[in-house]
This record gives sequence, C-alpha cells and structure tokens, in this order.
Amino acid sequence: MIIVMAPAATEDQIQEVIARLDQRGYGHHVSRGVERIVIGAIGAHESEKEAVAEQLSTLPMVERVVPILRPYKLVSHEVDRTPVPVRIGDAAFRGNELSIIAGPCAVENREQLLQAAKAVKEAGATVFRGGAFKPRTSPYSFQGLGEEGIDLLVETREATGLPFVTEVMDVRQVELVAEKADGLQIGTRNMANFDLLKEVGKVSKPVILKRGLAATGQEWLRAAEYIASSGNLNIILCERGIRTFETETRNTLDLSIMAWARQETHLPVIVDPSHATGQHQLVPPMALAAVAAGADGLMIEVHPHPDRALSDGPQSLTPKKFKRLMEDVRRVAEAVGRSL
Amino acid sequence: MIIVMAPAATEDQIQEVIARLDQRGYGHHVSRGVERIVIGAIGAHESEKEAVAEQLSTLPMVERVVPILRPYKLVSHEVDRTPVPVRIGDAAFRGNELSIIAGPCAVENREQLLQAAKAVKEAGATVFRGGAFKPRTSPYSFQGLGEEGIDLLVETREATGLPFVTEVMDVRQVELVAEKADGLQIGTRNMANFDLLKEVGKVSKPVILKRGLAATGQEWLRAAEYIASSGNLNIILCERGIRTFETETRNTLDLSIMAWARQETHLPVIVDPSHATGQHQLVPPMALAAVAAGADGLMIEVHPHPDRALSDGPQSLTPKKFKRLMEDVRRVAEAVGRSL
Amino acid sequence: MIIVMAPAATEDQIQEVIARLDQRGYGHHVSRGVERIVIGAIGAHESEKEAVAEQLSTLPMVERVVPILRPYKLVSHEVDRTPVPVRIGDAAFRGNELSIIAGPCAVENREQLLQAAKAVKEAGATVFRGGAFKPRTSPYSFQGLGEEGIDLLVETREATGLPFVTEVMDVRQVELVAEKADGLQIGTRNMANFDLLKEVGKVSKPVILKRGLAATGQEWLRAAEYIASSGNLNIILCERGIRTFETETRNTLDLSIMAWARQETHLPVIVDPSHATGQHQLVPPMALAAVAAGADGLMIEVHPHPDRALSDGPQSLTPKKFKRLMEDVRRVAEAVGRSL
Amino acid sequence: MIIVMAPAATEDQIQEVIARLDQRGYGHHVSRGVERIVIGAIGAHESEKEAVAEQLSTLPMVERVVPILRPYKLVSHEVDRTPVPVRIGDAAFRGNELSIIAGPCAVENREQLLQAAKAVKEAGATVFRGGAFKPRTSPYSFQGLGEEGIDLLVETREATGLPFVTEVMDVRQVELVAEKADGLQIGTRNMANFDLLKEVGKVSKPVILKRGLAATGQEWLRAAEYIASSGNLNIILCERGIRTFETETRNTLDLSIMAWARQETHLPVIVDPSHATGQHQLVPPMALAAVAAGADGLMIEVHPHPDRALSDGPQSLTPKKFKRLMEDVRRVAEAVGRSL
Repeated sequence: MIIVMAPAATEDQIQEVIARLDQRGYGHHVSRGVERIVIGAIGAHESEKEAVAEQLSTLPMVERVVPILRPYKLVSHEVDRTPVPVRIGDAAFRGNELSIIAGPCAVENREQLLQAAKAVKEAGATVFRGGAFKPRTSPYSFQGLGEEGIDLLVETREATGLPFVTEVMDVRQVELVAEKADGLQIGTRNMANFDLLKEVGKVSKPVILKRGLAATGQEWLRAAEYIASSGNLNIILCERGIRTFETETRNTLDLSIMAWARQETHLPVIVDPSHATGQHQLVPPMALAAVAAGADGLMIEVHPHPDRALSDGPQSLTPKKFKRLMEDVRRVAEAVGRSL
Repeated sequence: MIIVMAPAATEDQIQEVIARLDQRGYGHHVSRGVERIVIGAIGAHESEKEAVAEQLSTLPMVERVVPILRPYKLVSHEVDRTPVPVRIGDAAFRGNELSIIAGPCAVENREQLLQAAKAVKEAGATVFRGGAFKPRTSPYSFQGLGEEGIDLLVETREATGLPFVTEVMDVRQVELVAEKADGLQIGTRNMANFDLLKEVGKVSKPVILKRGLAATGQEWLRAAEYIASSGNLNIILCERGIRTFETETRNTLDLSIMAWARQETHLPVIVDPSHATGQHQLVPPMALAAVAAGADGLMIEVHPHPDRALSDGPQSLTPKKFKRLMEDVRRVAEAVGRSL
Repeated sequence: MIIVMAPAATEDQIQEVIARLDQRGYGHHVSRGVERIVIGAIGAHESEKEAVAEQLSTLPMVERVVPILRPYKLVSHEVDRTPVPVRIGDAAFRGNELSIIAGPCAVENREQLLQAAKAVKEAGATVFRGGAFKPRTSPYSFQGLGEEGIDLLVETREATGLPFVTEVMDVRQVELVAEKADGLQIGTRNMANFDLLKEVGKVSKPVILKRGLAATGQEWLRAAEYIASSGNLNIILCERGIRTFETETRNTLDLSIMAWARQETHLPVIVDPSHATGQHQLVPPMALAAVAAGADGLMIEVHPHPDRALSDGPQSLTPKKFKRLMEDVRRVAEAVGRSL
Repeated sequence: MIIVMAPAATEDQIQEVIARLDQRGYGHHVSRGVERIVIGAIGAHESEKEAVAEQLSTLPMVERVVPILRPYKLVSHEVDRTPVPVRIGDAAFRGNELSIIAGPCAVENREQLLQAAKAVKEAGATVFRGGAFKPRTSPYSFQGLGEEGIDLLVETREATGLPFVTEVMDVRQVELVAEKADGLQIGTRNMANFDLLKEVGKVSKPVILKRGLAATGQEWLRAAEYIASSGNLNIILCERGIRTFETETRNTLDLSIMAWARQETHLPVIVDPSHATGQHQLVPPMALAAVAAGADGLMIEVHPHPDRALSDGPQSLTPKKFKRLMEDVRRVAEAVGRSL
C-alpha cells in the first residue's frame, strides 16, 4: 500500500507511520515530492492488510492510504491462468459452448414445472431453474413451496433429464438443497450474507453467485472469494442488473462489468436479463447483447402462462418467445465464435 | 390499483382486464380520456395484490399498472396514530428524550470493552453496542469473537449497568443473542434477508433494523413489516447511509428519508453517522444534523484506541471526542425541543 | 392525471380539488375505494399540465398526483409510427443498415486527423468525429482547438469524403458549426442545457443528442422534445453510459434504455461504448453488445496513437483494433438481421 | 502520481514508462514489491498532468495510474488557509453569522415578488432569490419572464432594500445579470457548462455554484476552480441534493459533502433544502440539519401562494411556515455557536 501524508506532516509524524509499518513487519520506502510525501509499504500478511491500512489512516497527517493489490486471490485470473469450465450436469460454463439455464421464477405446481421444463429443453436449454424458497419484498406475497417445491424439481428432473438449480436463502436449507439439486443459487439479496457464503463453500455442488444489486465488481469477486476460501471453487458468477436512478427498467443490466469480470477472474460469468429488465420485451435484446459481449451463459425466466404466474410474470417469456430467442442466440453466438 | 391501457387497446382487450378483475373479486370503474383509457380496480386481498398487478401488466395493451396503497400496514402511521416508544433497558426511543447508543465496532477483548463502556456511559450514552458476529467484506479480515464476544458484552453490562445491542447475521444466532442481549441489530447487508427478519420477528426483544445500503424507503418499511407481521413490533429503524456515486464519503447519509420515515411510520428512527461517513471528522457534524432533523437517537462508534482497532478505526471517535460531541448534541436537542 | 386523496380527507377537501380541476377546464370522475378516494382528471392543456399537477399536490390531504400520459409528444412513437431514417451525409440511421461514426476524441492537428479519418474510412466507418470545442473537467487541461479545429475537420472531409460531426457546447458556436459540419453533437454535460437545445432546434442539420450521465430515459426524450419543438426533427439519440456506484468502469453502459428508447420513440438510437467504459479493452465487447441489442449505429473513438492522445487515450482504439472490431460488428449485425 | 505495473510487466516495459516520465520532465523512483512494481513520478506541469496520466495508462502492462494530488488549487484550503467571507449586499457567507437567501422559484409578477420579499425580509432573510430565466424539463412548461423578470427583481430590491440573486443559464445572459443583480447563480444542470463557468469567472459579482445533481465533490470543486481560474474568487458553493435510487424524495440532500467541502476548501458552503427534498414538509427538518452540520447559509423557496405557483409549488414554504422555520434556525444556529 501507499501512504500519502498531508502537506503539513512533520518529520515525527512520518516516522510514526514508519514505526508502525516496522512493527507489523512491512518494509518501506519514502518518496519526497514537491507537494506531498509518499510512503510505500512493502509486504503484508493477507489477514491483517485491511486492518493495518485502516489503522494507519487514523494517524495524524495521514491524508489517505491507497491499496495496490486486488483484494481477492483464489478467484483472480493471476492465480489460475487457464479457466477450467464449471459443470452443472452435462452443461459446461466457460468453455467454447454457451449453456442456457431457463425455467419459471417460482415453483408453483407439478404441471407448471413439467410444461416449462419440456419447453425449455426442446428449445435448447440444458439446465432448468425454479425457486422453492423465495425472497419476496412483501411478507404478504407468495413465499414459495419450500421443501415440497424441491421435491417437485426432483420429479421434473426425472421426467425430463434436465439438471436443475435452485436458490438457497438460509443456512438451514443448504444441506437439503446441496443433496437434491444440481447447483445452488445465491440470490442478489444474499450476495453479502457471509454466513451463507461460507456454508455453500463447504459443499461440492456448483454455486451460482448473483451480483448484489448494489455491489461493486470488487465486492462481487470478494463474495466469490468467501466461497472459494471455504473450499468450493465451482463458482459461476451471474450479473443480473444493478440499482441505479433509472426507473423505466427494474434494474440496469451492467454488461461491462460482466466483460470486466471475465478478464479479472478465471470463473465463468453468465447473465440474467429477466431480473435485470423486469420486462419480457427487453429480455431478448439484452440476452443477445450478453452473448455478443462474451457471456458464458444465460439464465432466463420462462413460464407457460406469464399472465397467471405467482411471481415475476411481467418479465417471463412464453415458451414460444423463448424458442425464437434461442434461435437468435445461436446465430449471435456463432457470430462471436461460440456455439450453443 | 389503476390500470392504464395503451392507446391502441381494443374494446376486447379492455374487457379482458375487467374480466380478470372480476374473477379476483375486484370492483372496477372505467374512465375514458382523450388519449388513454384508465381502469380503476377497487378492493383487494392483501396477499394477492402484487401478483394480480403483475399478471394484469402482462396482458396485451396494458401500458402500466399503478398501485394506490402503500405496501405496508402494521408499521404505517395510519394504523397506529400515536407512536409508542420502544425501550432498550431504560432507554426510550421516540419519546421526547433522545437515546444514544455507543461503543466499538467489534468486540475485541475485555479491557477494550470496559474502557469503551465506561467512557460512553460517563458521557451520557444509555445503550452500549459492540459486534461479536461481524460481516466483513473480505474472508481474510477479523471475523469477530462470536459467542465469546457475547459473553464479554454480558460481563460489561454487569460491570457498568449499560444494556447492550449486538448484531445477528445468521438465523442460528438469534436464540442465543435474544437470550443474552438487550436488543438485536439487523445490519445493512441483511435488511432483505427475509428468513432472518422472520426469526427476529418471533422474539420479544427490540430489533434495530438498519436500512439496506441500496434500499428505498419503501423497501425499508417493508422489511420492518416482515418483522412486525411475525409478531414483534419492537422495531427501531436506523438510517446508516446509502450507496451513491460519491466516493469522498463511505456512504451518503440520507437524513431526508429519516425525516420521511418518521412521518410515514409510528416507529422510532435513529441515525448511525459513523458507518454513513466512514470518517471520524464527519461524525460530529452529521450527528448534530440528525438530531436537528428530528432523529429519535444516535448510534455512534467509539473506540478507546482507534489507531489499534481491528475494524472501522477511521470512523471511530475517541472517548474524548465523543464526550465533546455529547455536549453539543445536548444543546442541539434542546434547540429543537428535545432532551437527552 | 390521477389525484389520490389521503385517508383523512374530508368531503370539502375533495370538493376543493374538483373545483380546481373545473377552473382549469378539466373533467373529473371520483372513485371511492375502501381505503382511498381517487379523483381522475380528464383533458389538459399541454402547457399547463405539470404546473396544475404541482399545484394540486400542495392542497391539504392530497396524498399524491400520478401523471398518466408520457411527457413527450413529437418524438414519441405514437405520433409517427414509421421511423424515418435520419441522414448524416450518405449514412442513414434507423434503417436496416447500421452506420458507424468514428474518430479521435479531440482534434489535435492535421496529420492526426488525416491518419484517423483514412483508417476509419477504410475499416468501414461512414461518418467521422472529432472535438474542436472540448468540455474538460479541469480548467488546466487541453481545451480544444476551437474554430481552427473546425477548419481542420473541413479539410479532412475534403481529403477523404467522410462527412463529420462535432460537439457544440455554447450557443455562440451553433451558427458556425451548423454551417460547416454535417452534424452537431450535444454532449452528455449539455443534455439539459435548454438554451443550447433550443438553438440546435433552429438549424436543419442533424443533431446527435447524448444522454446526460444522470438523466433518466424520460428526461432524455424530453430533451429531444426540446429540439423537436424548436423545429428540428433530425435527432439521433446516443446512449453513452450513466453514472452509478461502480468504479471499475468510467460509466455504466445502459443498453436496456437504448432498447427501450427504440420502442418508445421513432428516433434512431446509437451507442458510444468508448465514453461509457473508459477502457479500450472493454470497447469491443460493448460495441458488439450494442449491435446485438438493436442499436442503429455506433460512435467509437479511434486515435492513431492513443499513447500520445491529448485526451481520452485510455479508451481509444488503434486503427488496427478498430478494423478487427468492424469485422466482428459486421458478423453480429448479420446475425440479428441488419447489415453494415 | 503512482504507476502500478501488472505482475507480468517486463523490465523493458518498466523502462518505457520511465523514459516517458523523463521526456515530460518528471523524476521517478521505482519500488519493487513482492507482487507488484510501483513507479512514483515526481513533479508535473499542472496543464499536462491529466493527459500524461492517461497516456501512461495506455502503455502495455501498466495496471493503473493513481493520482496523488487533489485536482484543484485556487479553491483549496491549502492555498488560502483563512477563509474570507463572500458578500452579497450586506450578507456575509462563511463568517460566524449565517445568511439566509429566500424567495420564490420563479418570478411571476410584481405583486408576487413584493409579497414574497417583504415576508422573507421580515422573517430575517438578508438576500432575495427569484428565477427570471428558468431551466424547465419540459419545453411546454412556463419558461420564465426573462429580462422583464430581472427588471421586476430590481424594482423589488428598490422597494425592500434586499439584494437579490438570480440564475444565468446562457452565456448571453451573463452581462445583463451581472450588471443588475447582486449575485449570479449557476444551476445544477449547468455546473459542468464550462463556457458558462468561464463567463461568470470574468465578472466580479459573487457566484452561487450549485452542485450538479450527479457531480462528485471533486467535480464540484473543479467547477469552482474554473470560475476561480478565470478571475472571480467570489464563489459560494451550494449543495442542493444529488440523484440517487431513492424516489420518495426528489433528490437526496448530501449534507456530509457539505461538511467535507467546508474542510476541503476556503469557500463558503450553503444548502438548498427545497430543491433537495421537493416537499415542503421536509424543508424545515433539512434546513435545521444543514445549520447543525455547519452550513454557512440556506437558500429556501418561499411563495405567498404555493397552490398557485407556476413552478415548484410543492416544495415552497408559505411566509408563515418560513417565519416559524427562521425562529428554529436561530435556536439551532446558537446551539452550534453561530448566529443569524
């Protein structure tokens, strides 16, 4: 890290910073410019780095402390230079081929699931999705079928052969879901639920980690680092829109951070245009945009009857629209040298 | 709710909307303006309202659906017109008197806690704070002392007489903390952790609910509604800064939403200027601003030695600075007709 | 508009609202629900609508006033159902063919311009860009060559045959630029500079209107309405990234609003991935994403020597990288049924 | 500035950076850490600093370039350590005494102005405000009385003795307004209208510079630097709310940046709670908060009849409410050691 001293810093105050660095086992070099004195600190114990930076910044006449290294290691591109695809069932993420996850927002009943699963499989999806535990903004809204919903997802897998992913919201659900599902999903509201991240880090099933709706790219990768440092490197990042001042769309899909994350990490990065836009008519253009920008896959909400959906109807595609989209996705994927 | 039809809507499409309303037990009235046809829906079952609105908005030529009612009930000012103060120990929140919560970010050791507690009590704080379970952005940072930290807080209470509040991050911690602490705190990252909200809704101890760092005022009150609808009305709202584009301060303290929340709900609303600003020199002006704007209390980080703190040193006040601030708080409180 | 009364509203207060509507020539209908009384207002003079809504909302017990109509007319899709392409030189925007605008951020000298123009033309761009009047955050940075820069752009057009667009920042520049350039550009900082919008509304040359970096989609279309209502309908909208909390990218490219704007208006909408991302390595993926999402064109910064550029070097493509990008753009355009 | 090299940087690439620094007249020192090589650059010509930083960041294996110095000089606290109050008429800003600017949003007619001016003077305001040139989001809204409005403001000053400030939106208005008004105001939409900033920098009358609604604190001070570097140091900064995701309030009043700006610069900083909140009932708490946090003054909208106002009625105080607020302001000012 770099410590910038205020112009009025005395020699004693500079020496105080150096003494602190010394105590903590850092080397240092001092650079005396015309308007500022800057102290570079060399070497650090990962576990103390941030606390030391904070402590130094409370000392008199320290103007600011600038970190030099990225605050994540295991998920960084530097550590593991050749990305290894993460698999959910037979679907691989971050190979040449794109993989498409599709299905309804919430598990409602057997019939709905089967219809949805058959339709998305036929159109080319290779992973099914459906929520049994649902995070709802209102306590009075449909809260999901819970364990019963998981069982319906298992039945649907048996009937169609499609592996499935489903969300965990609570540490008490992890064991059950890890046993029955093919992949676990951490929703946007839980990206910084660190206890939950640690729990899914202890299982071996792949984890889809959605970006928090107000999380910076760095915080997202740090959340992935939590999972990785608990032992599970089967992580798929999922960009799903961030909160901005714009109100015409539910959230603002941030494809440039998706592209950035693919450069910064060896993990696969997929995109969920359904939650990002909140409007079915914007899902196809954003899905194609994601593929053109290099996404390793898509997660799309499909419901046999959006006008009767218990949640997220407005952003769900009908099977027919999804089929048409998949044809377009195939063409755009080929245009950028990928396949479906 | 109000359903606005697109200009090109046919009579059949309008009738389709009306038929749906009928099926769900809503009355309706149609208003035919020059450029738009607008359908008003009357009456609704709370538990279905949002799903119905979503479903209607997927019908052809429905331009948008505008809700009319506020999406919370139990915490709304309409329901309970005279706010009843919430108490933590002897400290009352939302009476004429302000109550001040103070203490270090994290529980580090017995000595630190005692020093901090004695200092803040002497200066006039009536509730102590300290984190035993810590949400840290990096998995490599100090994660808190856990259960041992709770025991140290209990000891500190015995030594000083100050009741204490502490954060719960995980449903598995609720029972323990509810038994030992005088109040539970839900941190900003867990404001939309609905399973956790339901659990703290089942205990009787007061809950301090921090606003999510990207939560709208409405979402904040809906989170409170989760706790209330699970049975616990002892809720204290806490504004602690929101995420904006500004980077000079850690977050942006949103005092106008604090004032709005006091009008919109019967719950007490307090302010945490420490997390909002991230810089000790901005804590006093923002604390005074909060009091002048009508806050029912403050939550302030105080550490005996900020330059050795294991977390949040830069935003912690020393006991001396805290004492001076409390004198100023007293004067501003009196200027707006409150007392300390 | 719809006027929602507070629950405590008396009959007199309701009649007061109705009397006001009457005075202003509005019809009304009252809908008495269980929890709220809602008054619909019918008919309005465009020029008074917003003032009336504001005035009504100040009356006692008016909870809120909800507008029903979109606040723009001339640029709305409703008015002119078949989009007519806007032309800059021979390049058409919002036809089947995409048009690409490219060139350096700032006009630096004759040599730089010629090199850039030849390179972008050869790669397939059909409009040249370059700034003579430069909005710079610091008063000490290079402020552009001004009128001399315009003359260099004219020379470059003579040498290459490429039409050019350039920014106007000040009402005093409009006449000169409108006379010499093939198109005028309104930068992101001036999107709500209404006097400037009115001036460019009086000329007949096409205007590229960049979205303000914190402007909502609606405000953007209202800014276009300013130009249109002054007489100039040759408007090309340009999405160039919005300001969010994310700091890894300079701005956040908002492609979903681009897609929304193409549905909402009959105007062409193009995308500038260079300013949005601020990093040359993110320009190609975002350019391809824009095309896949349906953009009518791109505006891209190309500099013969980004490492010597007087502004925006980090986001400029070299001619070689631009050429490669254009090949990819062609393929993605074809994949979505467009051509280059 | 500090240049951080990527881990894979070769010795040649490091030497290339050093050679560039040399050419531009910078000294350098290289610090070789375990994971990164960092190059410190010493000394710089103000006018080239940002361009050089940009150019260096385009070189191969340069990870990032970190600036060390603040990007403003004349307005910085470092340059002029004792703030000198700025005066509008007899009202001083940034002395011990607070000064209050009040009046209607827009100049509507003689009667309205006189009523408003007499009322605010009686309540204790020492500067009058009113807009003759109005920036309106819709081209169909009332656009202000223009020059005639300025004349009415002059008449009102003659009748009441109150000096007045009014907004300039267009470089063509500066001469007239500077001649007739006691202070010029740059509105939030024009904070980065650099040509306008340069023009008001050439006059000697004080300038109130509102923060752009999406401007960082640093950009705000850089805008002030534009005015200062053109020759006018009579600048008053005005915080008026920023754009965030919150929609319950029109904008989010950012008092912590107000407090920050008072530490960072020697300029006075005032607060406009009317535009920030957009709701008259939130104006008093936010006005008091601003004073408690150390603001040097307030700017408040007062209209004799908000329910007939041609703009901003919902956020205007009646004379009666303003009078009551001023009494509270006086008490809070005294509580923090200031006077009115």
